[in-house]
Amino acid sequence: MELWFSENQTKDQKISVRVLEVLYSGKSNYQEIAVYKTAQYGTLLALDDIIQTNEKDEFIYHEMITHVALNTHVNPERVLVIGGGDGGAIREVLKHKSVKKATLAEIDDKVVEVSKKFLPSISCGLEDKRADIQICDGIKYIQEHRNEFDVIIVDSTDPIGPAVGLFSGQFYKMVYDALKDDGIFVAQTESPFYNVDLIKNIHRDLKELFPIVRLYLATVPTYPGGLWTFTLGSKIYDPLNVKSFEDIDTKYYSPEIHNSAFVLPPFVKNIINAR
Amino acid sequence: MELWFSENQTKDQKISVRVLEVLYSGKSNYQEIAVYKTAQYGTLLALDDIIQTNEKDEFIYHEMITHVALNTHVNPERVLVIGGGDGGAIREVLKHKSVKKATLAEIDDKVVEVSKKFLPSISCGLEDKRADIQICDGIKYIQEHRNEFDVIIVDSTDPIGPAVGLFSGQFYKMVYDALKDDGIFVAQTESPFYNVDLIKNIHRDLKELFPIVRLYLATVPTYPGGLWTFTLGSKIYDPLNVKSFEDIDTKYYSPEIHNSAFVLPPFVKNIINAR
Repeated sequence: MELWFSENQTKDQKISVRVLEVLYSGKSNYQEIAVYKTAQYGTLLALDDIIQTNEKDEFIYHEMITHVALNTHVNPERVLVIGGGDGGAIREVLKHKSVKKATLAEIDDKVVEVSKKFLPSISCGLEDKRADIQICDGIKYIQEHRNEFDVIIVDSTDPIGPAVGLFSGQFYKMVYDALKDDGIFVAQTESPFYNVDLIKNIHRDLKELFPIVRLYLATVPTYPGGLWTFTLGSKIYDPLNVKSFEDIDTKYYSPEIHNSAFVLPPFVKNIINAR
Repeated sequence: MELWFSENQTKDQKISVRVLEVLYSGKSNYQEIAVYKTAQYGTLLALDDIIQTNEKDEFIYHEMITHVALNTHVNPERVLVIGGGDGGAIREVLKHKSVKKATLAEIDDKVVEVSKKFLPSISCGLEDKRADIQICDGIKYIQEHRNEFDVIIVDSTDPIGPAVGLFSGQFYKMVYDALKDDGIFVAQTESPFYNVDLIKNIHRDLKELFPIVRLYLATVPTYPGGLWTFTLGSKIYDPLNVKSFEDIDTKYYSPEIHNSAFVLPPFVKNIINAR
């Protein structure tokens, strides 16, 4: 018998990976959670049947959603990650020595619990004494904090289900207010092939708040189409003008990749430049 | 009833696309050929059940396998494409005004025939009067030509079946000899996730022949893992030092992408630097 996990990446496209063992399968208050041992990607976490992370390619997404903003800020001390219950973003954030406290605001405690149990190489950052784990609605959390964070990272699921509010203009206003006067916001903003309108809207909404808004790219094999966008909003610091990079151990990110990630193919440039 | 085409991208991973109509299915002397009308990618060509090209994302691969080398050469007049029977590489090559003759050496006439019939937006370059279509074994063709080409492009299928000889050290020696004294070679060289040893071997083999050997990247949604490598060998011109770019109409390639494509994530750098 062959066991395969399939994700409907779009209504017309699927990715399937061979499953060696179902390590966990259950329903939390927010979503279906499954952990598979796969032949291709090692242990893999799926939420509502969408691949979130896996041992093999997680380094790409987690390095790219964190180090670009963390190196753009000259002295990031207080960092907030909304979502990201697997702990991968926190692990990367804590590689920066300047960081004094990294708060995780994750709505679903079951994601944190399952990640700690089955994905220790990803969730290990959550055990750090500088990690502050808050199980809460990220939107509520951010409303209660003003002028507090140097960097806010939204490491969310797709804009359906629990994460839908994390892609709205109102939410970005709260993020802006929760950031200090030189703060930086960054979010995963989906695929330039399949989510063109979403990327365009996020860019427009952030442009109304932040003087510097930039889109950058990385390729994640297990995400639809591979090519993935991140959008960064900054009050002062420009990611294209970073003077000094912290020396951190990475497999995808580097100072050269930091800069080249902002070089957009014309078809991607058109998404954010079109009116 | 739902119709899906599935490709085994590796033995542990599949991609599936919804098929609206099977436009062609047959067996040539070399391979199984299928053309599907798909919901996600428009018309799609598969050889031996491996996606080769499709109307939606073909621009990425075809622009990136051609313009990097064509712009690196100061005056490319004679260009040879080995494989590439769909015509997409020839179409891009012919966007360069300096090109006087672009030869296609494709082993399988059925691929050319089917592409002309079902993929006119890709194969259109084959109708150009500067296009010279040779149905022949690319290895034999290249043995019969010395010191003739400015640029040789190997636009092959994966290194199994008819294309296996196009990934060997002996073949690269023939390519070297078929190039002029300032000639440039470029080939698609598979995935940095799934074909590590292959990429390493190609790099080593080319280093024994060409003074300048460089790996570059592009992301093609329908190829395994998305991230794709190309390897370029050059006798004189360095792709990192292009002084003037021809003004051509492209959707993925640009002078900035030309340069950033050579910026490799550390895990890719390690593939070609490791001994």
